[in-house]
Amino acid sequence: MSILVVGSVALDSVQTPFGRVKDALGGAATYFSAAASLYDQVNLVGVVGTDFPPEHLEFLESKKVDLRGLQVKEGRTFRWSGRYDYDMGAAETLDTQLNVFADFHPRLPQGYELSDLVFLANIDPELQVEVLRQVKSPRLTVLDTMNYWISYKKDTLSKALSLVDIVLINEVEARQYSNTFSLIRAARKILDLGPKALVIKKGEYGAVLFYKLDNGDGHPVGGKNGSFVGDHTYFFAPAYPLEKIKDPTGAGDSFAGGFIGYLSRVRNITADELKRAVVHGSVIASFVVEDFSIDRLRSLHKGEVLQRYQEFKHFTHFEHLCVHADTCEMLRLPAEGDLEWVNS
Amino acid sequence: MSILVVGSVALDSVQTPFGRVKDALGGAATYFSAAASLYDQVNLVGVVGTDFPPEHLEFLESKKVDLRGLQVKEGRTFRWSGRYDYDMGAAETLDTQLNVFADFHPRLPQGYELSDLVFLANIDPELQVEVLRQVKSPRLTVLDTMNYWISYKKDTLSKALSLVDIVLINEVEARQYSNTFSLIRAARKILDLGPKALVIKKGEYGAVLFYKLDNGDGHPVGGKNGSFVGDHTYFFAPAYPLEKIKDPTGAGDSFAGGFIGYLSRVRNITADELKRAVVHGSVIASFVVEDFSIDRLRSLHKGEVLQRYQEFKHFTHFEHLCVHADTCEMLRLPAEGDLEWVNS
Repeated sequence: MSILVVGSVALDSVQTPFGRVKDALGGAATYFSAAASLYDQVNLVGVVGTDFPPEHLEFLESKKVDLRGLQVKEGRTFRWSGRYDYDMGAAETLDTQLNVFADFHPRLPQGYELSDLVFLANIDPELQVEVLRQVKSPRLTVLDTMNYWISYKKDTLSKALSLVDIVLINEVEARQYSNTFSLIRAARKILDLGPKALVIKKGEYGAVLFYKLDNGDGHPVGGKNGSFVGDHTYFFAPAYPLEKIKDPTGAGDSFAGGFIGYLSRVRNITADELKRAVVHGSVIASFVVEDFSIDRLRSLHKGEVLQRYQEFKHFTHFEHLCVHADTCEMLRLPAEGDLEWVNS
Repeated sequence: MSILVVGSVALDSVQTPFGRVKDALGGAATYFSAAASLYDQVNLVGVVGTDFPPEHLEFLESKKVDLRGLQVKEGRTFRWSGRYDYDMGAAETLDTQLNVFADFHPRLPQGYELSDLVFLANIDPELQVEVLRQVKSPRLTVLDTMNYWISYKKDTLSKALSLVDIVLINEVEARQYSNTFSLIRAARKILDLGPKALVIKKGEYGAVLFYKLDNGDGHPVGGKNGSFVGDHTYFFAPAYPLEKIKDPTGAGDSFAGGFIGYLSRVRNITADELKRAVVHGSVIASFVVEDFSIDRLRSLHKGEVLQRYQEFKHFTHFEHLCVHADTCEMLRLPAEGDLEWVNS
């Protein structure tokens, strides 16, 4: 499988209570690529200026990210500067310089149109729609967005939302888009546009998945042959409990990288697989915020991801797990015994 | 088993975007008793004035709550009045009249000192310590508190915290008590005082359990014979996703009712049982906020609780559940197959 990402590549200057970096490697497509490349081959479409440090390109290439779609334009690279306070909930933007990103127009190099999974990171929804027109029957399309497009290009954004399989959005944006405080009503409004699933990211409070079932048993819900009827259903994953978050920048895009990366490895995209993908997204994001920029992704390896994935089980499951059938047999678990009031 | 609760019985006047009630049945001990009585026999210690409507006493008696410990004093019952906005996160207190509750001094009727489980609802920590001195080797003691005592009686509160098995506290109070933003550091500070477990309630964001393990396998952690060494461990339960919350008053005390009620029914209080107790607490709280005052608890029955408990599994577990051993056998679950990158 191959994964296509279209989005920003940036140089970020970030201050948090735990330090600061200047012109560090950033951008939605960068975080996504560095994360998703743990799982599969990534094709990146974006733009940088002629000032972009070559070592950043070398880093992405070392992760087997295909950079044929990364345009290099005369001028300066997109720069963002922001500050976080102790609660780390939301960045205060200090400065945004679009530079070469202002006129970005995604062009897919030959072969990219056959990418199996497509992630449209936060960019102008008109460009997101354009990319969707260029790809040929992808297995899965996923879109992220931000408050700016909800405020100024809502119609185009709604169109883009209606064309993708899965929407990733943060809590505040979900409420803003649907003009309601209730996340359940917000989710319904977005899913009613057409997507088969929606992930609402809540930062330190985790992530919520809403998905449509086709037959009520939690089975096939995605892929190009999937169909959805009936109710919207719900899954919750907490954030990994970290004592110290150094820099929350890129958490959402790394989440997307783990989420889509995992889905690229499964045979059928079922409700159960979507749940596990949300956990993979949460695991990857939990590593990224441990250090500035994409630095934690430089050294992160699969074993660490798997270990934290196992930990997630322990702090969310409250009934016995039977990973191996023979262990279950051995345990002879009682049938809902703990729930019975019958002996009272 | 029998459960002792010591706390307020009140008449509440509450406004929310969905309606209002005046002088409705309220108070921490009331919510707790109505909830815990679904699981076991409750002994209530508190005080009301001579104006307390007899139908409220009849309601509690109909739930088999023993009211011998409920003093009736000349004067008016404790009254609280508050308002919630759409986010339902925190009440704005409009008025508090302590009335007969101002001079409340808990007295345990004969036999109550043998109660198996003890819940010290939010009252002056001096009184909480007094109650602990009166009970004889309870199986489990649990304490709740509030910002007022953290601000004005922190030393006495710390003493009370050091004497109980489990502490229930909300997120803001945990941060206030420990003077740190990190909930993990806050939890460590509280657990280091002596409690074996801590539940931090986060309202619409669920509840977190921190507990100490004695040997790393998740087994015996509680009860008077339990001992704790080693690390603090973690479990997270989301709030039940409700489209409409009518009145959040009493959610925390009903949580305590479900939590302790469930624990009164289990043989050994293990880490696994604590997790399930947190889910029971969350389930009960999710019902209570569906209506004003304790009204939802008037009709709530065990079948509804069990059904919602099952739903919690579906929206938090991401690996296969094998409740019946033969189902696991049948499923022939792969050994961590979905997690392997080996075929890549």
